[in-house]
Amino acid sequence: MSAIIQSEMPETTPKELSEHTYRFDIGMSCSGCSGAVNRVLGKLSGIKSYDVNLGAEKALVTAEPNLDYDTVYEKIKKTGKTVYSGEADGVLTIYKERTPKPAAA
Amino acid sequence: MSAIIQSEMPETTPKELSEHTYRFDIGMSCSGCSGAVNRVLGKLSGIKSYDVNLGAEKALVTAEPNLDYDTVYEKIKKTGKTVYSGEADGVLTIYKERTPKPAAA
Repeated sequence: MSAIIQSEMPETTPKELSEHTYRFDIGMSCSGCSGAVNRVLGKLSGIKSYDVNLGAEKALVTAEPNLDYDTVYEKIKKTGKTVYSGEADGVLTIYKERTPKPAAA
Repeated sequence: MSAIIQSEMPETTPKELSEHTYRFDIGMSCSGCSGAVNRVLGKLSGIKSYDVNLGAEKALVTAEPNLDYDTVYEKIKKTGKTVYSGEADGVLTIYKERTPKPAAA
């Protein structure tokens, strides 16, 4: 909520962001892994909804406007899981390349 | 290291605790789970050595005298893993009962 209200705001002005969409690519290999991420996100205040997909190894977070990306990212990092990439309202950051498993050493 | 040194300390006086031994019973079901606990312990300063055993679902931590149990416990909790019990220099605390899987629902 902003204390300053523009008068005669044209209707074409983009709406104030009412929520954030954060996506993370996280190394998760079993339901214990995804359960841990679920529990951590479940305790974080400012999250509207979240979904952790073990098969895709992704987490999708819908957050209140005042919950910034870095707070969510740091919280997930504290699980000790590898975060390969994250996306904050469409802006992608790659932290670590996902390396394909060697075919035969 | 203590600044106060007792003179003529009798030889039978118990030594100052030179390290702590902390043990944790943690729900870990795959190498991703134990890897996460490993990474978190690896980043914590004040740890002399640690061992995470996936098969036994245990972590053993040998810590410097100034690293207290609660700090290590809270760090492990932040992984989102379930900590069933912990032992601080032989003093056991049970946080959650390990319930055996139901035979047939």
